[in-house]
Amino acid sequence: FSSTTPITATLFPGDGIGPEIAESVKQVFKAADVPVEWEEHYVGTEIDPRTQSFLTWESLESVRRNRVGLKGPMATPIGKGHRSLNLTLRKELNLYANVRPCYSLPGYKTRYDDVNLVTIRENTEGEYSGLEHQVVRGVVESLKIITRTASLRVAEYAFHYAKANGRERVSAIHKANIMQKTDGLFLKCCREVAEKYPEITYEEVIIDNCCMMLVKNPALFDVLVMPNLYGDIISDLCAGLVGGLGLTPSCNIGEGGIALAEAVHGSAPDIAGKNMANPTALLLSSVMMLRHLNITDKADRIQNAIISTIAEGKHRTADLGGSSSTTDFTNAICDNL
Amino acid sequence: FSSTTPITATLFPGDGIGPEIAESVKQVFKAADVPVEWEEHYVGTEIDPRTQSFLTWESLESVRRNRVGLKGPMATPIGKGHRSLNLTLRKELNLYANVRPCYSLPGYKTRYDDVNLVTIRENTEGEYSGLEHQVVRGVVESLKIITRTASLRVAEYAFHYAKANGRERVSAIHKANIMQKTDGLFLKCCREVAEKYPEITYEEVIIDNCCMMLVKNPALFDVLVMPNLYGDIISDLCAGLVGGLGLTPSCNIGEGGIALAEAVHGSAPDIAGKNMANPTALLLSSVMMLRHLNITDKADRIQNAIISTIAEGKHRTADLGGSSSTTDFTNAICDNL
Ligand SMILES: CC(C)[C@H](C(=O)O)[C@@H](O)C(=O)O
Ligand SMILES: CC(C)[C@H](C(=O)O)[C@@H](O)C(=O)O
Repeated sequence: FSSTTPITATLFPGDGIGPEIAESVKQVFKAADVPVEWEEHYVGTEIDPRTQSFLTWESLESVRRNRVGLKGPMATPIGKGHRSLNLTLRKELNLYANVRPCYSLPGYKTRYDDVNLVTIRENTEGEYSGLEHQVVRGVVESLKIITRTASLRVAEYAFHYAKANGRERVSAIHKANIMQKTDGLFLKCCREVAEKYPEITYEEVIIDNCCMMLVKNPALFDVLVMPNLYGDIISDLCAGLVGGLGLTPSCNIGEGGIALAEAVHGSAPDIAGKNMANPTALLLSSVMMLRHLNITDKADRIQNAIISTIAEGKHRTADLGGSSSTTDFTNAICDNL
Repeated sequence: FSSTTPITATLFPGDGIGPEIAESVKQVFKAADVPVEWEEHYVGTEIDPRTQSFLTWESLESVRRNRVGLKGPMATPIGKGHRSLNLTLRKELNLYANVRPCYSLPGYKTRYDDVNLVTIRENTEGEYSGLEHQVVRGVVESLKIITRTASLRVAEYAFHYAKANGRERVSAIHKANIMQKTDGLFLKCCREVAEKYPEITYEEVIIDNCCMMLVKNPALFDVLVMPNLYGDIISDLCAGLVGGLGLTPSCNIGEGGIALAEAVHGSAPDIAGKNMANPTALLLSSVMMLRHLNITDKADRIQNAIISTIAEGKHRTADLGGSSSTTDFTNAICDNL
C-alpha cells in the first residue's frame, strides 16, 4: 500500500458538535497530507423505510462500498417507529467488534496515570437482542442471546488484535458463575481461540471483580474481550479512568474487513455551533481508521501531535479546563505535526 | 427497645478465614457489652435435600426464627447437583435488598477520598433468574425477569433507607435505552415510589454513564438502587474505590424484617487459619446488623473504634500493608472502644 493512492472513506459528521469536530479531522488530515477523500453522509430528516431509521440506505451503501468510515455523534431523534442510529449501523453493517483503546494521556491529570488497555466488545447480540416481552401484567423478560458464531468471531478478533499490536494478555470478562449457559458458551469460544495463540496469556475474570480491579489497579489489564453489555459498561468505566469519552477513540470492525471508527461521546447540543467542542475522540478515532488502512506513518504523526498538544497544555478546550476554541486546538495540532 | 434485653442472632462463620473473623466479631461484641447471643450454624458437609445445597434446613430455620443474622464468606463446593450457598440464602429467605454502604476510610489512602454512597441491589430476580437454555446447538439464551412486585419492593426500601438515614438523593441505575421493557418497568416502579418521597431527589442514570461518573467523581452519588446484575457490578466497583471488599460491609434485607448482614469477600483459603485475615468487612457488617436492631449506641461505638484503629495505622493487617495479626487488630479495636 502506497500512501499516495487516494482512498475514499465515508464520513458521518453526525449531529450537534459533530460537524465541527469532523471539520477538525478534515483540517488535520489535510495538514498531514493524508491520502483520504471523504464521502460525506448526513443523517436524514425522514425515516428511510429500507433501514427503518433516519439513516439513509445510500449512506449505508457508502460504507459497504468504501469499507472504511468515520462517524461523529448521532442523537437518535425521539419518537417511536424507528431504530436507534447507532444500533442500525451495527446491525446493518454487521459491526461485530467494538475496539476501544484507553490510555492515560501524558500531562492530562486524572486519578490514574497507569492505564493502557483495550476493550473489545461483542457488538451484535447478547443483551442487545431486542427480544423482550411481557409475560403477564407486571412480569417482563428480556432475552440475552449468545451464539457460538459471534463469540468465536469476536474472540478471534481480540487475539488477532493482541498479537498484531504486541499485547501480551487477553482477559475474557464474564458472569458465567451465574449465567452458566450464555456466558459459559462465550468463555468456551474464547478458550478455543486462546489455544491457537499460545504466546498470548489468557485469563477469565468475573465482571464484578474486573470492575473492582480496574478501579484499584488498571495496569493489571491489557486486552479485554466480552459480551455486548459488559463491553458497554467496562469501556465507559475505562474511559472514565483517563478523563471520559471526549478523549477516547473507538473503531467498529465488521464482516468483510469493514471498519467504522467512531467518537462515542454525545452530540452535546448545548455547545453545538459554538466552536467549543473537543475534537480529540474523533481525531483519535480517525487515527484508528488510518491504522486499519495500514497508513501507519500518518497515523503515528497525527496521534503524536494530538498527544503532544494536550500534554503541552497551552491549547485545551473547556472540557479539559482550558479556554481554547475547537479551531485553536486544531491549529495547535497542525503546528505540532 | 432496651439494650439490655438479650437478642439471639444466627451466626454463619462460613469457610476459610470465616471462623477467625467471626471470632473477632464475638470478641468486639463482648468488649462492647452488646446484648447479642449467637446461635452458630455451619455449612454442612452433605447436600440437604430440603435446601438442595450444603446449607442445612435447620440453619435457614434459625435465621427465620431469629430474624437477624451475620454471615461470613462461604465457598460453594465445586460439583454438580446443588445450588450456590449465597443464592440459596437469598432465595430461601427472600432477601430482596442487598444494602452496601461504601465510604472512604480516613487514613487509609486510595485514589479517592470523597466516597460516601450506598448501593441498594435487587437481590432476587433479573439476570439471576437461573432460566437459561440452548435454543439450537451454538445458540443459547438467558432470561432476565423483572417484576413489578420485586421492583416496587426494592425501590420502597431504597427511599425508606434514604429518608431514615438523612440521605438526599436516590439514583436509579438502568439500561432502559436498550432493555426498554425490563429496565423500563424497573424505572416505572422507582418513579412511582419517588412520588411518595418529594423530599428526596430522584434521578435516573444509565449504567455505562454511571460507571464513568463513579470513577471520575463518586461524590456525585448518594443512594443508588438497581436491578440485580447492575448491583453486583456497581457495588464491587464502589468497594474498589475505597480499598476493596475486605473493607466494605453489606446487609441483606428480607421479607418480614429479616436482616442478614454479610461480608461479601471470599473465604481466602490461602491465609485461612494463619491469624492474618482482616475482619473489617465482617465487623462493619455486624454494625449494620446492630443498626437494623436499633442498637444504635453500640453500633456507633464499634464503628468508631474500627475506623479509628484503621486511621491510626499502627495495627493493620497484611492486606492493608501492615503486619498485624487478626487478633492484634481486634485487640486494638477493643482498646479503642
Ligand atoms: C447509545 C447506546 C445505545 C450505546 C450502547 O448502549 O451501545 C452507547 O452507550 C455506546 O456504548 O455506544
Ligand atoms: C458469588 C456470586 C454468586 C455473588 C453474586 O454474583 O451475587 C457475589 O458476586 C456477590 O456479589 O454476592
